[in-house]
Amino acid sequence: MKVAKFGGTSLASAEQIRKVCAIVTSDDDRRVIVVSAPGKRFKEDIKVTDLLIMYADRYLAEGSAEDEKNAIFKRYEEIAEGLGLPTGITEQIMAELHEVLTNRRVDDPARFMDAVKAAGEDTCAKLVAQYLRSLGEDAEYVNPLDAGLYVTDEAGNAQVLPEAYEKLRLLRNRKGIVVFPGFFGYTADGVLVTFSRGGSDITGSILAAAVNAEVYENFTDVDSVYVVNPNLVANPKEIREITYREMRELSYSGFSVFHEEALLPAYQAGIPVCIKNTNNPTTPGTLIVSERKSTQTRVSGIASDRGFCSIYVSKYLMNREVGFGRKLLQILEDEGLSYEHTPSGIDNISVILRERDLSEEKKNRIVGRIQRELQVDDIAIQHNLALVMIVGEGMRQSVGTSARATTALAKAEVNLEMINQGCSEVSMMFGVKEEDADRAVLALYREFFSE
Amino acid sequence: MKVAKFGGTSLASAEQIRKVCAIVTSDDDRRVIVVSAPGKRFKEDIKVTDLLIMYADRYLAEGSAEDEKNAIFKRYEEIAEGLGLPTGITEQIMAELHEVLTNRRVDDPARFMDAVKAAGEDTCAKLVAQYLRSLGEDAEYVNPLDAGLYVTDEAGNAQVLPEAYEKLRLLRNRKGIVVFPGFFGYTADGVLVTFSRGGSDITGSILAAAVNAEVYENFTDVDSVYVVNPNLVANPKEIREITYREMRELSYSGFSVFHEEALLPAYQAGIPVCIKNTNNPTTPGTLIVSERKSTQTRVSGIASDRGFCSIYVSKYLMNREVGFGRKLLQILEDEGLSYEHTPSGIDNISVILRERDLSEEKKNRIVGRIQRELQVDDIAIQHNLALVMIVGEGMRQSVGTSARATTALAKAEVNLEMINQGCSEVSMMFGVKEEDADRAVLALYREFFSE
Repeated sequence: MKVAKFGGTSLASAEQIRKVCAIVTSDDDRRVIVVSAPGKRFKEDIKVTDLLIMYADRYLAEGSAEDEKNAIFKRYEEIAEGLGLPTGITEQIMAELHEVLTNRRVDDPARFMDAVKAAGEDTCAKLVAQYLRSLGEDAEYVNPLDAGLYVTDEAGNAQVLPEAYEKLRLLRNRKGIVVFPGFFGYTADGVLVTFSRGGSDITGSILAAAVNAEVYENFTDVDSVYVVNPNLVANPKEIREITYREMRELSYSGFSVFHEEALLPAYQAGIPVCIKNTNNPTTPGTLIVSERKSTQTRVSGIASDRGFCSIYVSKYLMNREVGFGRKLLQILEDEGLSYEHTPSGIDNISVILRERDLSEEKKNRIVGRIQRELQVDDIAIQHNLALVMIVGEGMRQSVGTSARATTALAKAEVNLEMINQGCSEVSMMFGVKEEDADRAVLALYREFFSE
Repeated sequence: MKVAKFGGTSLASAEQIRKVCAIVTSDDDRRVIVVSAPGKRFKEDIKVTDLLIMYADRYLAEGSAEDEKNAIFKRYEEIAEGLGLPTGITEQIMAELHEVLTNRRVDDPARFMDAVKAAGEDTCAKLVAQYLRSLGEDAEYVNPLDAGLYVTDEAGNAQVLPEAYEKLRLLRNRKGIVVFPGFFGYTADGVLVTFSRGGSDITGSILAAAVNAEVYENFTDVDSVYVVNPNLVANPKEIREITYREMRELSYSGFSVFHEEALLPAYQAGIPVCIKNTNNPTTPGTLIVSERKSTQTRVSGIASDRGFCSIYVSKYLMNREVGFGRKLLQILEDEGLSYEHTPSGIDNISVILRERDLSEEKKNRIVGRIQRELQVDDIAIQHNLALVMIVGEGMRQSVGTSARATTALAKAEVNLEMINQGCSEVSMMFGVKEEDADRAVLALYREFFSE
């Protein structure tokens, strides 16, 4: 069986939902459907989830928020009408929504917010199930509480509990199509808690792992993952098949198509993930797999991202000093900072961080501690760095990928501030100045992807 | 004033000592001379320091070691005779040596060993001072105790104490030439303690810093430091000027000409160090400086060394996990391991270590802890790695050094297991298989040093 998750733009209108249901019914193996809340219909539109958040904020502050409530109901009623659902059914679903939005028990604002946000997906799932039934399909809305999607009690950031999988596995036995709302679960005490934003991907990934799906289909609004950011290169090549590992190495993409942490359950269960386009379902999309046999193309993709900085420290005889690197990283950890890479020479080491994580205050504390505790000769912070990655399982088998890459970069007059390639050889990282980043990506694209 | 230190081969015979003294007297600024113990005269010869160690070991075990004692005296007497020193003076110096070697207070073997070893340099310094006087020079043997070379009380591994510098600074005021034995100092209680082996370089470096010498000349038996290991490339180019930083980055050289940690006092005081050849004193040698103006040559040298291994670990979403790298390095530190580099991808990191440091037992403990405590997806150890470095302050100013290097390596069919270049851009490291290391060095030499 297949688990198919549909994103917000796939459910933004009755017309989109008709496409979704056509996709679902075209393949008997699509037995578990996970839906998001309706997203944007046009560029300036507001996502239902955002309307719900605006509603909850105002309701908590002022005791009512009629404009927002009306806007929410209007979206759903238009959808129900567009799908031609019987009035009685629509009224029932709208009444349930109304009940959630005007729940008087607002003594715990975080719980109220989670319940309101979750209503976006929940209402959508009910409408989709009803529409499928109206088409004569054996479809059923399934609530996460009934299905056993148990999570930790952390409002807005729930984590799935291990015991959930066993219960959710029983979804395999259901006849017909299960329509499941994404984005939330329930604690052992039956309290609704949402995942982090974008968490419908998480629900789909958990269900795919639980039912041991043959594939987890993630329907969105792009044809595939591209080898390079389409904002930088017009009509870039599509990626047909990629490993989880490559996908992760490409995470500095700046054009992330889905919630990356969401893939963890599917990754751990070894379930392939297929990224497909609701608006163009016949294109093959991109398949993310554990192992890939064909590694003919040496480089699978090019990623880049800006907004990095580096902390460079040097100290004579550093590399004889047991514990130096560990102490340096400890100082960063004490400030709650995660780092990206630590390229080093004999007597120097650079730590690359996200610029946004390093406030002026943290920076001063860190520099002070490094000087005091590590007695370094020199410390310097370089700002406005970009990281450019080339990624590909095929790089392992071929001599000279780095030569081609660095030569292409040299011809484009890109100075390399840093280079980093670990033993995995699935990726190679170049640190460049931000103003050189786009030129670097273009040069690499031309080198590895132009015929 | 200049501090000049002469190594063992420079003092191996009367003929060599005549060269040393000709060098000393040819420049009025050479006012502080540090001498080693006589070294090898020919390939199969035994260094006096080794004779002294053999003597002390046997004396401690058996209460006498006549053969070794005779060999030691023979070396010094031949030197004294060859230098034409008056019999009375030689007898006096030999009596002092005899006194040290037959000191009955052998209740502390480590102290006895240190005293015997130090007699090698001490006796040599006395002979050199007397020979300079016989030439009519105002030269004087100065004992480290009298001069105030205070050290920590760690037999065979003394560390200079900060207060020593002020006292030693008074050497500036001495008229004539100071002849100072290398390799040892005294504790505050007046107990003799030696530095680690090769420690005459340390004495010279300390004195150069203390008297604020214009240069610390280190006379040895090679014309200069070469851009590449002369065992790999015949007649390689000489390095005229190099920064401390470059010198350190070249430390994977496999042809280290001097005691590297010894340079710390001179480095910290900003004293230039000149490596020169006693047997060819008119060649300019290699000057090690703090800053170098001329960085015309992009690459200053190529170093390589074998016997490394890497521990590769990967874990999905590793780079979102604050503290992962620190915990990994903590495990290594707990085993007392120092590491060289840690190239990384998004979800993987490799730690490069000296193979000799990683016993089978340590390896098993480390792998077990990494699996247990870090819950990694994958761990692999790669053996028989070599690190090849290209080094040069000039690399910073030029685009394309990495392109030239990696292209040369690709043409030589060297597969790059790792690449690492930090923000300093003074060096670039390539991890290669051991069997590829020499080919890699040759390819890089041809690329950067062949006209």
